[in-house]
Amino acid sequence: MSKKSVITIYRGEMAESEHQVHLAAVQVDGSLVASSGDADRWIFARSSAKPLQAIPLVESGAMERYGLTDAELALVCASHNGEEKHVALAAGMLAKLGLEESALSCGAHDPFHKPTADALKAAGNAPSALHNNCSGKHAGMLALAKAIDAPTAGYLSVEHPVQKRMLAAISSMSGVRETEIRLGTDGCGVPVFGMPLPSLAYAFARLGTPDDLAASRQAACQRVVGAIQSHPDFLAGDDRFDTQLVRATRGKLVGKLGADGVFAVTKPGSGLGLAVKVGDGAVRALYPAVTEALVQLGWLTEEEAELLASFHRPILYNWQGTAVGRIVPEFDLSR
Amino acid sequence: MSKKSVITIYRGEMAESEHQVHLAAVQVDGSLVASSGDADRWIFARSSAKPLQAIPLVESGAMERYGLTDAELALVCASHNGEEKHVALAAGMLAKLGLEESALSCGAHDPFHKPTADALKAAGNAPSALHNNCSGKHAGMLALAKAIDAPTAGYLSVEHPVQKRMLAAISSMSGVRETEIRLGTDGCGVPVFGMPLPSLAYAFARLGTPDDLAASRQAACQRVVGAIQSHPDFLAGDDRFDTQLVRATRGKLVGKLGADGVFAVTKPGSGLGLAVKVGDGAVRALYPAVTEALVQLGWLTEEEAELLASFHRPILYNWQGTAVGRIVPEFDLSR
Repeated sequence: MSKKSVITIYRGEMAESEHQVHLAAVQVDGSLVASSGDADRWIFARSSAKPLQAIPLVESGAMERYGLTDAELALVCASHNGEEKHVALAAGMLAKLGLEESALSCGAHDPFHKPTADALKAAGNAPSALHNNCSGKHAGMLALAKAIDAPTAGYLSVEHPVQKRMLAAISSMSGVRETEIRLGTDGCGVPVFGMPLPSLAYAFARLGTPDDLAASRQAACQRVVGAIQSHPDFLAGDDRFDTQLVRATRGKLVGKLGADGVFAVTKPGSGLGLAVKVGDGAVRALYPAVTEALVQLGWLTEEEAELLASFHRPILYNWQGTAVGRIVPEFDLSR
Repeated sequence: MSKKSVITIYRGEMAESEHQVHLAAVQVDGSLVASSGDADRWIFARSSAKPLQAIPLVESGAMERYGLTDAELALVCASHNGEEKHVALAAGMLAKLGLEESALSCGAHDPFHKPTADALKAAGNAPSALHNNCSGKHAGMLALAKAIDAPTAGYLSVEHPVQKRMLAAISSMSGVRETEIRLGTDGCGVPVFGMPLPSLAYAFARLGTPDDLAASRQAACQRVVGAIQSHPDFLAGDDRFDTQLVRATRGKLVGKLGADGVFAVTKPGSGLGLAVKVGDGAVRALYPAVTEALVQLGWLTEEEAELLASFHRPILYNWQGTAVGRIVPEFDLSR
C-alpha cells in the first residue's frame, strides 16, 4: 500500500480531506487483473452481497411458486430509494406470499429518496419497514423461507435455514470457506459476510460469467443479472449510481452498493469482476473511485463515462450554489 | 505518520472501516506538547475558527454600540442547531442592527436539529437563512460591518473590510502570515483559512490564555471564551458535543467544531490548545478522537470523561436497536 490510492477532496486549490481506497479487479479464473491500495484487506460485503443472496431464492423455485417477477427480483437485489414504486412492489411481494408487512424484520428508516422522505413528513406519516432500503431483500428471504418450508419467523438468525443458504451461496460464489467467512450484523438485522476484497470481486466475476458453475446455478445467476439489467430503476432509484451505471452502459455493467463504502461490479460475459472499498466508509469517495476504476480498466467507453461524470468527479457547491471544491480520484490501477 | 493513529469502526469483532486522525496539542509559547498522525498537515479551520473570528467583533465596540449580549456572542461563535431559540436569537441580533433577514448571505439549509427539521417539514415550512448553522456568525459579521462603517452588502468577499479583519485576526492569533494562509470558500460563502494543524492549536491556546496579548485583545478573548462558558447551549445545542464539552467540564474546556472533521479546544488559563483533524473529514470519528485526546492529555477527569462516554466510544445500533458495532480510538498522543 505504498502507492497513493486516494480520493481527494479539494476546497479551492488546497486538499482538505482524503479517502484511502482499495480496489481489486479479478478474473473468473481467480487471477488478479488489477489492484490499488490494500487490495487484500478484509471487508464486509454488506449490501453489495444482495445480488449473490438472490441466487438461493431463484434456485429454490420460489420465483415460479409465488409468481415473482424480474422487477421483484431486482428489488430483492436492491438498496432501494423507498419511493412509492419501491414500496408498492415490496408490498405486492408480501401479498403474493400471503404475508403482512409485520413479517418484515428489517425495521423502518426514512426513505433514501429525500423528496419522498420530505413528503412523508409533510403528510405527518412515519416511514414503515417497506420504506427500508432492504425491504425487497427481506421480502425475498421470506419467500425463500416459505419455498423451503421453513418458518418465516426468526429468518434473521444465523441459525435459520434461510441464513444458512445465504452463507452457503456467499461461500461458494466467493470461494471463501463458510468457516472462514467472518460474520457481523447489518443495519437491517441480517448477518453480513466478511471476506477479502478480491473474493468479492471474484464472486461478481462468476455472477456475470457463470459458465463453469452447475446448470441450475448458471441459470440463477443469469436470471439475477438479467433482472437488474431489465429493471435498474428497482435496484436503487433514478438519482442513484447503481441505477445510472446499468443505464449508462445499457446493462454492459451491473454493480451494487454496500454500506460503509463498498461497491462490486460484474461485466457479464467477460469473466471480470471488480470490488472497491473506501477505507473510511465514505459514500462521497465511493462513486468517484468506482467510476475512475471502470475508466482505467477500459470497461467504460468515453461516452458512458461522460454520462456518469457527476459521479466521477463531483463538483462541490455551497448553500448559495457557488462551486467551492471538487472530488478527484488519485490512484493508478495496476497489475 | 508511522504509528497507528486511527479511529476504528468495528462491526462485530472485525474492523470494518478506519479513519486516520491527526492531532496536535500546543502550548501558548508555541511548543508542541503532544501529537499523533500527520500533525503538521495543513487544514482548513472551517467553523472551528468562529471563536477567533468573534474577536474583531468585540474589539470593534459593536457589542456596546448595538447592545449585543453574551448569549448573542456565543451564537456568533456557533455552528448552531437551528432550534427555535437559536433562530430567535439570530433574528433579535438583526433587529438590533436594524437589518432584515435578507441581509444574511449564508443561504438556507435544514436545521441540524432533526426534530426541528422534521417539525418544519410537517408544518410545510422551508428553512430560512436564520436556520443556517452559521447565521449567528453572519449576523456578527453584519454587526462588525456596521460598527466600522463598512457596507453590509458584499460582506462575504475577501476584499470586504469585514473579511480583511477576519484574516488579520486569524493571522495574528495563529501566527501564520496573512500571505501564507490559504483561502477557500465555506459552505456558507465566507472565506475559510488554511493553516498547519498546530497553528490552529496555537491560536486556541492563546484564545484561552491571552496574557501576552495587547490589553484590548486580551479583553476580547476573555469575553469570547466567557460568553461560550456562560451560554454553551447557544454554541451548538443540547445534543451536541461542543455544548456537552463545556457543560461536562463546567467551562474548564471550550471547543469548537469545524466542518470536514476539525475540532479545536482551549483550556482557559492553562496555556494549552488542541487541534484535531480527521483525515477523511468524517464526523463519526471526530468526537471519539477529541475525547480520547483530552483523556490522554489529562484535561478531562474520569468523571468528566464518563459524562462524554457516548461521544468517546459510541456503540453502533441497527434499525431494530440491537448493538452491532462500536467506534474505538486507537492512537497514542506522545511528545
